[in-house]
Amino acid sequence: MNTINLAEKLSRFSSHWDPHVVADYNDNDVMVVKFQGEFPFHKHDATDDFFLVLDGEMQMDIEGEDPRTVTAGEMFIVPQGVVHRPRAENECKVLLIEPKGEPNSGDADRVPAKKPRI
Amino acid sequence: MNTINLAEKLSRFSSHWDPHVVADYNDNDVMVVKFQGEFPFHKHDATDDFFLVLDGEMQMDIEGEDPRTVTAGEMFIVPQGVVHRPRAENECKVLLIEPKGEPNSGDADRVPAKKPRI
Repeated sequence: MNTINLAEKLSRFSSHWDPHVVADYNDNDVMVVKFQGEFPFHKHDATDDFFLVLDGEMQMDIEGEDPRTVTAGEMFIVPQGVVHRPRAENECKVLLIEPKGEPNSGDADRVPAKKPRI
Repeated sequence: MNTINLAEKLSRFSSHWDPHVVADYNDNDVMVVKFQGEFPFHKHDATDDFFLVLDGEMQMDIEGEDPRTVTAGEMFIVPQGVVHRPRAENECKVLLIEPKGEPNSGDADRVPAKKPRI
């Protein structure tokens, strides 16, 4: 039960698309992650997807819709079942929340759900 | 499915200890709130309590322990069942997450769970 400084946690790794768990909220992982480039399109059939941009700017591509821009201090929830792709031209730091055991790649097969804890 | 600017949401009200719902994440309310002064000690028997400070500084008093300071960019999770009291000398802006239907006062009886949506 400690205060968690998100910038300090983010300073501990430099990899992209590699969420690190910083806290537990009920049965969810609270994670920090760095985005740069683009992730594959995917969806989560049984959970919403929580994004809060801490630093920088990202685009959220939504299948069949115009992309949304999300900048520091803004959040975006992708409802369950919606096909989406986060994307960032420059490095963007994000707080993620997902139920424990959910792969961050949803139904895409690129990234295993390793999610180290820091 | 829109980008949610937290500072803009916070600009819409001035009351303290009055969480406003800005988004849904699974069966949780995602809320913004302004703290000033002190809340009653309380606990949530069946849920963790999620705090992320967006602006300013708060203290988290924990029964039987030293108080924790939580400043902008820092988060604090109070595990279920732990008696706690948020407190802020000056106005502090916070992101909260709680399961829908949970009173933000937990087992204390001061504040009804109204939680307007903005």
